[in-house]
Amino acid sequence: MTDRTTGPPPVHPAWLPDAAFAPVGSRRVLVAPGPDAGPVGETVVAELRRATAAHGGTLTVVDAAGPRLDDATVRAHDLVLVVAPRAGGPGQRRYPDAHPTAYLVAAATAGRYDGETGGQFAPDMVRRVRVGGTTVVAAGGAVGLLYGLHGVVRLGERAFQADDGDHLERPLTPVRMLDHWDNIDVHPVMGQVERGYAGGSIFYADGRVRDDLSRVADYARLLGSIGVNAVAINNVNVHATEARLLTDGLADVARVADVFRPHGVRTYLSVSFGSPMRLGGLATNDPLDPDVQAWWAATADRVWATIPDFGGFVVKADSEGQPGPFAYGRDHADGANLLARAVAPHGGTVFWRAFVYNHEQDWRDRRTDRARAAYDHFAPLDGRFDDNVVLQVKYGPLDFQVREAVSPVIAAMPRTRVAVELQVTQEYTGHQKHVCYLGPLWSDVLGFPLAEDATRTVADIASGLPGPRTPEGAQLRAGGITAVSNVGDDEFWTGHPLAQANLYAYGRLAWDPSADPVALLDEWLDLTFPGADPRVRETLHAFMDDSWLTYEKYTAPLGVCFMVDPLRGHYGPNVDGYEYSKWGTYHFADRDGIGVDRTVATGTGFTGQYPAPWDAVYEDLATCPDELLLFFHHVPYQHVLKSGTTVIQHIYDTRADAVDVVESWVPRWEALRGLVDDRLHARVAERLAEQVRSATEWRDQVRTYFFRKSGVPDASGRPIY
Amino acid sequence: MTDRTTGPPPVHPAWLPDAAFAPVGSRRVLVAPGPDAGPVGETVVAELRRATAAHGGTLTVVDAAGPRLDDATVRAHDLVLVVAPRAGGPGQRRYPDAHPTAYLVAAATAGRYDGETGGQFAPDMVRRVRVGGTTVVAAGGAVGLLYGLHGVVRLGERAFQADDGDHLERPLTPVRMLDHWDNIDVHPVMGQVERGYAGGSIFYADGRVRDDLSRVADYARLLGSIGVNAVAINNVNVHATEARLLTDGLADVARVADVFRPHGVRTYLSVSFGSPMRLGGLATNDPLDPDVQAWWAATADRVWATIPDFGGFVVKADSEGQPGPFAYGRDHADGANLLARAVAPHGGTVFWRAFVYNHEQDWRDRRTDRARAAYDHFAPLDGRFDDNVVLQVKYGPLDFQVREAVSPVIAAMPRTRVAVELQVTQEYTGHQKHVCYLGPLWSDVLGFPLAEDATRTVADIASGLPGPRTPEGAQLRAGGITAVSNVGDDEFWTGHPLAQANLYAYGRLAWDPSADPVALLDEWLDLTFPGADPRVRETLHAFMDDSWLTYEKYTAPLGVCFMVDPLRGHYGPNVDGYEYSKWGTYHFADRDGIGVDRTVATGTGFTGQYPAPWDAVYEDLATCPDELLLFFHHVPYQHVLKSGTTVIQHIYDTRADAVDVVESWVPRWEALRGLVDDRLHARVAERLAEQVRSATEWRDQVRTYFFRKSGVPDASGRPIY
Repeated sequence: MTDRTTGPPPVHPAWLPDAAFAPVGSRRVLVAPGPDAGPVGETVVAELRRATAAHGGTLTVVDAAGPRLDDATVRAHDLVLVVAPRAGGPGQRRYPDAHPTAYLVAAATAGRYDGETGGQFAPDMVRRVRVGGTTVVAAGGAVGLLYGLHGVVRLGERAFQADDGDHLERPLTPVRMLDHWDNIDVHPVMGQVERGYAGGSIFYADGRVRDDLSRVADYARLLGSIGVNAVAINNVNVHATEARLLTDGLADVARVADVFRPHGVRTYLSVSFGSPMRLGGLATNDPLDPDVQAWWAATADRVWATIPDFGGFVVKADSEGQPGPFAYGRDHADGANLLARAVAPHGGTVFWRAFVYNHEQDWRDRRTDRARAAYDHFAPLDGRFDDNVVLQVKYGPLDFQVREAVSPVIAAMPRTRVAVELQVTQEYTGHQKHVCYLGPLWSDVLGFPLAEDATRTVADIASGLPGPRTPEGAQLRAGGITAVSNVGDDEFWTGHPLAQANLYAYGRLAWDPSADPVALLDEWLDLTFPGADPRVRETLHAFMDDSWLTYEKYTAPLGVCFMVDPLRGHYGPNVDGYEYSKWGTYHFADRDGIGVDRTVATGTGFTGQYPAPWDAVYEDLATCPDELLLFFHHVPYQHVLKSGTTVIQHIYDTRADAVDVVESWVPRWEALRGLVDDRLHARVAERLAEQVRSATEWRDQVRTYFFRKSGVPDASGRPIY
Repeated sequence: MTDRTTGPPPVHPAWLPDAAFAPVGSRRVLVAPGPDAGPVGETVVAELRRATAAHGGTLTVVDAAGPRLDDATVRAHDLVLVVAPRAGGPGQRRYPDAHPTAYLVAAATAGRYDGETGGQFAPDMVRRVRVGGTTVVAAGGAVGLLYGLHGVVRLGERAFQADDGDHLERPLTPVRMLDHWDNIDVHPVMGQVERGYAGGSIFYADGRVRDDLSRVADYARLLGSIGVNAVAINNVNVHATEARLLTDGLADVARVADVFRPHGVRTYLSVSFGSPMRLGGLATNDPLDPDVQAWWAATADRVWATIPDFGGFVVKADSEGQPGPFAYGRDHADGANLLARAVAPHGGTVFWRAFVYNHEQDWRDRRTDRARAAYDHFAPLDGRFDDNVVLQVKYGPLDFQVREAVSPVIAAMPRTRVAVELQVTQEYTGHQKHVCYLGPLWSDVLGFPLAEDATRTVADIASGLPGPRTPEGAQLRAGGITAVSNVGDDEFWTGHPLAQANLYAYGRLAWDPSADPVALLDEWLDLTFPGADPRVRETLHAFMDDSWLTYEKYTAPLGVCFMVDPLRGHYGPNVDGYEYSKWGTYHFADRDGIGVDRTVATGTGFTGQYPAPWDAVYEDLATCPDELLLFFHHVPYQHVLKSGTTVIQHIYDTRADAVDVVESWVPRWEALRGLVDDRLHARVAERLAEQVRSATEWRDQVRTYFFRKSGVPDASGRPIY
């Protein structure tokens, strides 16, 4: 990618610079993608060809017509990548007996794995072993081969060192998606990418799908390398122009799908529930209307006729002004099943968002609680959704806040496939102007033991595994993990170059939620800055490891959420910015205290939506964790935290301490000048300066706001205004 | 105007419906505009021709070749309008002795008036007398004749009733201007008209000056009828496209000037101080650079060659991002004189705005006070401005607030011509969604005895009369009165039909600041709703007379200013909306009190910028008027006002009382259905509903904000949230 130019400046290669391929590319490599490997197999071969050409290695490509892989052949190579035949079984294909990979099948797919996976070595599974002096990667299919290749790239030289065991890798969940909130038309205020902080869309320009999709191809390559396998290419708020991607624009969508396909990524569209009226000229969008049903069926037929491996639809309905089934007296099961039945014959899936709440709330009304809304709307519908509906639930009950309780909806619907929605784009976490590495947040969320008496994690639920059966005994299918992407046509993809790490970590955590997010930073650093001075790694770890917690410390305290500026699209402080608004996000600070009473005993009752033990943990001030205190309770400023300090002194101290941390980064980054790419250094330096400015503003506004309101002096004596 | 259609719906005729001309049009009218009356004389004749044709009267037009106006001729008419010859004197023209108006000269211009005006009956002066059964209007020129005609129209039947004396009318000041903040290009957020609440621009469409200027012609007629005689046709924030009106666009500007000219209105342009670089390709805009001076001189030459009666320039420099002389180490006298010297040979005037302040202020810094800025910048420059520079000063030191102290700059520069700038467009007073009749505000401002020990009013200063000499004994020339217009291409001109009254009152008060603003409402009502049921007048008086005070009561209290929502362009409540911003507009509310300490003793020292006695009056809490209390002082919530109530209870009570008033308007307006035009009724009803909604929001947010902060209960027991 470094040698491709889209006019100056060149696009940054992110975590796939040519140098990252040196350990592979300098070796004797054999690849046997199998006779049915298709475009993904071609990608693997092309990657290897490019790497070996660049770094002095050799490449042998074995196809069905090639030489048999005897022991000598294997030992004559340092790295052998091979697609293993699928295990037998009714309806399962076998490769012809003549296939040359028999040796490797034995080496790579023998043993316990077949048993664990129900007799099938799935296409995206990959096993890596050392066989003598050779590293052997065997995959269940071409996409697994691609993942196996990138696994070796990530390991680098370590992949060729002494035998460290026998590794099987497989993704937690079969759907690991990115949603793009990209618009075709540029909105005068929102810009082209809603909540986008990295320039324009890589998909669209000049009012249509780009002719030159080379940036999409580069992006697809990045996604394939981290296991992301699904992309919805347009904003969930589907405007007029974008709605027509579903019909008039299908040929263009097919071009995009063609670009994603070689990297194992399926294409999805966000569609408007109002499409039958808007696009079809129908008199209604009523999900029970036969004409509406017929319109969706015919539309789906055309989609899959054009793109046979199309993924499905993402739908935001009855939310923030988008049309939905409520207008017709129908519920969201009616709405979701309407689309599900249209796509079912094609194997399509409907991702139906649970982000439904009253966005015209009266701030005077303390009985209504937006946090309750998704549960109240959806929990009663459990069991009513078709099997190809996935309910897509934001990780928190509000909206991608820097700190929220995990949404109880995720645990509330045992008969429903649930996908957890994360946000890679930093809408509430600094607009990719602030360093805010979100791996730890997502790791906490995915690993949170929400269900089954705190034994089943959010990731377990999203994967449908290892989970329990439904109440009726059926095995739940996986929902998936999805997230809003953070890339644009920016030179560094993500505005802030360090925000690339968020995209990287998202893909890796969606693959394996148990991964250590700090260890993922090591992977990302090794790939992105290959061969860099050790100070680069040390400095970036110092910045990034706890940067989410640092961001939290200078923004809204103790889980109270928001306090962001509505005028600047949720950037920068505005303590009362949403306090008297229609959005249902309030802190209720007065001269005596702050926080939202969401208890059953005296508040909105939201804690009652949690399964045990969390309902009790959150209900009780004594057990509610400090970091969520103000999310669940309204307390006096003098309330003493478990940390031993008062709420007000915590507010004062943490905001000031966090800014000291951010300020310390500036000279440390300056010291790296010359040790990283100059343009990257300059971009990060510019963003750090802005982060210092903005964090200082946060510190001073929040501290001053609460001093003016509480009248309590800061025991540390630091300035308040 | 009612019979012209610009496609449905027809444009509302404002205060010039055909019916308003019935008293004139039904009579025997003679007009003698004189041989040099030009296009304004033609307008007068055309108005009379149209009125008499519509209402059954007769019209005799006498020109130099017409019959002599003997006594019998005069007595044979009910209304005689005549241009009187100018009094003699060196350089003064006389009409030929043969001119037929000798009789009327004697009747109309004899006596004390010549003496008062230095021996000259100025072109815009007009005298009205009853001569036997005939109403005689004699003017010093064609424009006076136009004003005289509209004076008779305003009087209606009363103009033809028993002799009520001998009336001389003349405008306070020779310049009565409207500034249009219209852009050619439509800004995606600001719209086409900055701070415009009445649709698009009447001047521009599709990226250029309109081909069809008929709306401008209608507007010019409205302005001519109330004595407005100058219009700047583009935004003081001069963007790229609009900057070129000064050069490439001159032919189009000339077309606009041609449309204004027949109504006695001269055309001005807002120009960018950065024009030499932006338009001329020069390397600098430095006012002392000879090339810059030559560029401006040549540019002015071209302007006046194209439009010989062009008025001059309006300039916003070094303000809110506009370029200015500071960049070159020059001051604003250098900057203004640069342009003044270019336009002086042509008789042009430069209106140089004093709205200069630091718009990147740090909210933490309580020593800097935006209110001080204009005085600090400009007062030291007094005496340095050329004679054709007018310093254009906003009426208050901040920015067109609903309640501000009068700007001390107005009194601070006795050697400088000063124009007072008002704002007809309701930027901070409800966006023409709220009824807010601003006549009383302007009347208060213009009549405020700011200077010379409270003997000389703001209007006196703006008019240069009757005022004292400069310290050197020279007679100051008038500066003028100017305001930001409120019209757009809306069917009712002003969005809210009742906002037409603001435009009307502005023109009438600019002509005569001593006019009673409530009486001006009577004039406006009589003209706009001729022959309407008495309930219309009664109801609209009930709404409008105190509507400014009502608006004040539900918005920011006691002169503290702002508290408007930055997100909605200064519409609706947001108590802390500007509190932590860069704009220098703060209320400093904490749990104990509120207000800005601008005293010399303990505050920013702003009170020291006032002449006696106001410096002392505002400095002392005991004498500072309640309505400006928080503009000048920071006081505890329990501070007792002169009204006897506490600050906090005043905040609580007035907000609730004011909403009660606004709510009472809805049924009263509903009762007028059928008594006024249906479309007008519907528009007002829609706006009243929004005013109730918005005022309720103001009430509840402000009351709740201060309850949460102060903890003081509302003694009235009304709801707080």
